Amino acid sequence: MGPALVLRSSQIVGSTTRAHGYASLAGKAAVEEIHRKEGVFPVASGAGVCPHSSPDTAAAKSAETILAAQKAGCPAHAHKTTDQQAAPSSSSSAHKAHTALYEAKNVSPSSFDYQRFYSGELDKKHKDRSYRYFNNINRLAARFPVAHTASHAEEVDVWCSNDYLGMSKNPVVLETMHRTLNKYGAGAGGTRNIAGNGQMHLALEEELAGLHKKPAALVFSSCYVANDATLATLGSKLPGCVIFSDSMNHASMIQGIRHSGARKVIFKHNDTVDLEQKLAQFPKETPKIIAFESVYSMCGSVGPIEKICDLAEEYGAITFLDEVHAVGMYGPNGAGVAEHLDFDAHLAAGKSVQAVKGSAMDRIDIITGTLGKAYGVVGGYIAGSTDLVDMIRSYAPGFIFTTSLPPANVAGAQASIAYQKAYMGDRRLQHLNTRELKRQFDALDIPVVPGPSHIVPVLVGDAGLAKMASDTLLMEHGIYVQSINYPTVAVGEERLRITPTPGHTVEQMSHLVQATNDVFNRLGIKRRADWVKEGGRAGVGITASKEAEKMDPVWTDKQLGLLDGTAPKVLNSSKGDKAVVDLKALAEAQKRFSTTLDGDASVNPVKTALQDSLFPNHIPTLVGAQA
Amino acid sequence: MGPALVLRSSQIVGSTTRAHGYASLAGKAAVEEIHRKEGVFPVASGAGVCPHSSPDTAAAKSAETILAAQKAGCPAHAHKTTDQQAAPSSSSSAHKAHTALYEAKNVSPSSFDYQRFYSGELDKKHKDRSYRYFNNINRLAARFPVAHTASHAEEVDVWCSNDYLGMSKNPVVLETMHRTLNKYGAGAGGTRNIAGNGQMHLALEEELAGLHKKPAALVFSSCYVANDATLATLGSKLPGCVIFSDSMNHASMIQGIRHSGARKVIFKHNDTVDLEQKLAQFPKETPKIIAFESVYSMCGSVGPIEKICDLAEEYGAITFLDEVHAVGMYGPNGAGVAEHLDFDAHLAAGKSVQAVKGSAMDRIDIITGTLGKAYGVVGGYIAGSTDLVDMIRSYAPGFIFTTSLPPANVAGAQASIAYQKAYMGDRRLQHLNTRELKRQFDALDIPVVPGPSHIVPVLVGDAGLAKMASDTLLMEHGIYVQSINYPTVAVGEERLRITPTPGHTVEQMSHLVQATNDVFNRLGIKRRADWVKEGGRAGVGITASKEAEKMDPVWTDKQLGLLDGTAPKVLNSSKGDKAVVDLKALAEAQKRFSTTLDGDASVNPVKTALQDSLFPNHIPTLVGAQA
Repeated sequence: MGPALVLRSSQIVGSTTRAHGYASLAGKAAVEEIHRKEGVFPVASGAGVCPHSSPDTAAAKSAETILAAQKAGCPAHAHKTTDQQAAPSSSSSAHKAHTALYEAKNVSPSSFDYQRFYSGELDKKHKDRSYRYFNNINRLAARFPVAHTASHAEEVDVWCSNDYLGMSKNPVVLETMHRTLNKYGAGAGGTRNIAGNGQMHLALEEELAGLHKKPAALVFSSCYVANDATLATLGSKLPGCVIFSDSMNHASMIQGIRHSGARKVIFKHNDTVDLEQKLAQFPKETPKIIAFESVYSMCGSVGPIEKICDLAEEYGAITFLDEVHAVGMYGPNGAGVAEHLDFDAHLAAGKSVQAVKGSAMDRIDIITGTLGKAYGVVGGYIAGSTDLVDMIRSYAPGFIFTTSLPPANVAGAQASIAYQKAYMGDRRLQHLNTRELKRQFDALDIPVVPGPSHIVPVLVGDAGLAKMASDTLLMEHGIYVQSINYPTVAVGEERLRITPTPGHTVEQMSHLVQATNDVFNRLGIKRRADWVKEGGRAGVGITASKEAEKMDPVWTDKQLGLLDGTAPKVLNSSKGDKAVVDLKALAEAQKRFSTTLDGDASVNPVKTALQDSLFPNHIPTLVGAQA
Repeated sequence: MGPALVLRSSQIVGSTTRAHGYASLAGKAAVEEIHRKEGVFPVASGAGVCPHSSPDTAAAKSAETILAAQKAGCPAHAHKTTDQQAAPSSSSSAHKAHTALYEAKNVSPSSFDYQRFYSGELDKKHKDRSYRYFNNINRLAARFPVAHTASHAEEVDVWCSNDYLGMSKNPVVLETMHRTLNKYGAGAGGTRNIAGNGQMHLALEEELAGLHKKPAALVFSSCYVANDATLATLGSKLPGCVIFSDSMNHASMIQGIRHSGARKVIFKHNDTVDLEQKLAQFPKETPKIIAFESVYSMCGSVGPIEKICDLAEEYGAITFLDEVHAVGMYGPNGAGVAEHLDFDAHLAAGKSVQAVKGSAMDRIDIITGTLGKAYGVVGGYIAGSTDLVDMIRSYAPGFIFTTSLPPANVAGAQASIAYQKAYMGDRRLQHLNTRELKRQFDALDIPVVPGPSHIVPVLVGDAGLAKMASDTLLMEHGIYVQSINYPTVAVGEERLRITPTPGHTVEQMSHLVQATNDVFNRLGIKRRADWVKEGGRAGVGITASKEAEKMDPVWTDKQLGLLDGTAPKVLNSSKGDKAVVDLKALAEAQKRFSTTLDGDASVNPVKTALQDSLFPNHIPTLVGAQA
């Protein structure tokens, strides 16, 4: 164990049930403890006071940071231009320093010193402040968006989860999962090819194909796997394929491209002029994939989908669109930004699963999405043409050789999608809350990276300050917002990534804004006006005019129901408001399971197996089930 | 859509609720339909009659098949020696033939013809008979090991699931999952670093570290991801690393090694002489990883763990042991074959999580395992030294940038592990059933690939016959055993991979054996005596002497309780036997959740959210919960 980790583990161990292997912050007490032991307390001003602070606060453009990350072999946003041959370790000084602590097991004098090597790699993370401490956050379904820390008594408001709509506690999702657990058990028991393919899996894929109005869809363990496996398979099979990748693409796409072995060309973030120049360098008949995202997670920017489709057609490319942060969140059916671009046409199409010809969603060749963010469960998928999907199904090792997702997860995800297809209220309210939160930050000159999406990135601009701000919000205000540092964002663009949900109340929002303001004051974090003076950072304060910097949100006033008075209302605890559950949507979602689960609600294997004798106080019972 | 798939999809569509994208066999009717339309019926003898039959029935050694697969770019067991640059498509004739069916969307004359390419790739699969049809199998928790097909009325005995112990329907697993769902909701809501790390995740990792008596463990979406991410990270970081890989290693390890960019050296399956020769070619100080498995899934062979540890020490390598098919199944605590090798010492150690010094498990550097097979849920993990695990946690993109597993899955997995730590009955009975099944097959001269593990591979030796045998068992006998064909096994070594469980009854086993015998007769599949005449195949019939071919099983008579009369009894339906649930083990497993779930059993977000009004007949209620 490296000395740095030894130090930190020993600091933390007092406040966690047990620290094994790495640091997991148990809650307020653990954060206080680590700050106290290192002699660091929240202070009134200044960078570089937190143990996590980076001395390098110079502004760095994303592309440059990516290059730096590339050279350092960092996993995120690190497009490597050569194959990842291991570079010799450069930590020889670290090696010497830590010999005393090195675990000598199984190593004779002339063997490579593995333990010292691991320790050295960890020290690098500590030194560049990119070592991650996990917070122990337990999100309470019944009290969404509240979580408890390692202590059940210590509760916090969660403001950074990707459970954007609170679907992880939606009654129809949970009820469907309970019933499926009882009927089909805890696990799938095999790969899709061997005993792990059932009606629930097939039904979810049909639901997803219909959502995106594509002929076919395929479910993976996660969208990381979906992106990696699909790009790797496609890029390696298409002869002479060139993959054009947005410079801000997610790590999963970068890995998929790397694993494909195909030639890759990185274009500037959302820059279709740059993309076109690069596309034009290849013959039209060369197979090409343009890989990009609809909503970029860390900055909230939105990809120019239609323009990229134009270019793809002109230059003979196919389009690969990651809608991971958009599915459930945009469009009349929740299919994402591509659907949202033709909002009225898709609204008019009602429940039809036929493609709206010429629509943005129709023009995209491959859409990937997740079941683990707005849909609240777990898993990922692709949707596209029949043969494309079947080819990936038939050739991608990451799909073929892995146990399929459990029936209960799969059914819960389908219930969630079906509910969101039938009810726009959650995503409308999420976007209204996003607007309101941005307005309140703006009124206090707290800098928010401008963007048209549901992400609210509060710029801090320094790794140490961002971590300290996050820790202080947790310790002093009972608010959990993870700080986002390098390598996930560029050095100098560190931020608090805030994600409002429809479940956040007026009071919780007000508390967040006041607490953030307080933390900005105490830590001396720069306001928007400060960034204007410095010429801007991460899109903030590029111009003195706030109005000029604003972007039109994806959701229009009309779509949100602001023009006709149908907009949902923000929850107000003092008025006793509770989260809305739409009964019509719920019934729609339930209908999906009328064949698979109806008539079986009374089957309870827990009871069956134990002959009703064991869990008188614990058995989940389906009271008076239909049948 | 390729013509082959068009054909098959149209054949199948009548018997499935909807065929979208690829073929999923709905059950008996669908299989009959595809056989009828192609003019194929089960016949009395002969290879090559099934549409899936391969003309190539020549014996092929595994290593050669791997080389062939490598050249064909096949994903399984295909160690590529060069980087996977895409080879130009060789399907030009197929291209011409299918122009009429080609989907013209978005393709101008000079663009690459993507749809035709996909179709051509699928045709290759159809032509070499490796195209996979998924069976629609819905395993019923309350009636384990019975499943229904697409029709709820059509039931089959499942004999090929990797839910080896039936833990997916174990009451403590399900009960824990129900409670966790109610308390913490359906999904984790983020990566481990951002809002997706809670007490359930930390507790599972502590449980796993304790299981393998290692300082640390780390959970991944699947063990495919665990193997891929760990080997890729380690192999790319260790300077000049060379990875020694068993020729039968699983696709996930092969991918991880490929993704590492490290030099790889393949050694003959389980051949430590070959391994030593290859290790000796490198300087001792060169970092080396020996990657291998304890139980090889498709043949049931067992890796020479102790000898490989000896070699690793001698030549300065670390060991990476995949115990995916062994965890839960071997050892007094279910930690796998490495634990089993020092059975008595680990048994004597009781609940201690301290390493048994010098034991095989202690000597292994990295153990990987799954939560989705014997443990019955989903997910994968690694266990090893603190710094090793922390380094993978800190650098592996496949771990960092993905939504963590839902709390309920994680808690269910922990309950399963805890239960199996405290109760040996399930795995003992599984192994007794394995012995009995092998005995019954042997009595009928039905050839079983010899092996010391719990896998019962019945040799068929021809792709068409294997598929036909599987289909016939399903259609005629209500038995589901997936056929295993190339590229998962070598051409000529096709088989039915049978996995007995403690839940299979005397009657079900007898039915399987009689049905298999009938199918062997009707299809003219070779018996062991036939293989003897041909000089043997896949280890079967290498010698005329049955006794000489037999291997000592990993579980000894003593360990199974056969010497002292404590061996569990096979279930006998006619006597009304029911699956045993061990109350002591169950209580042990429940104790794990006394802090996280106790006092919260009455919290029911379904009810809370709906104010008790919506699901009078459906709400999973925790009746009279403690609190």
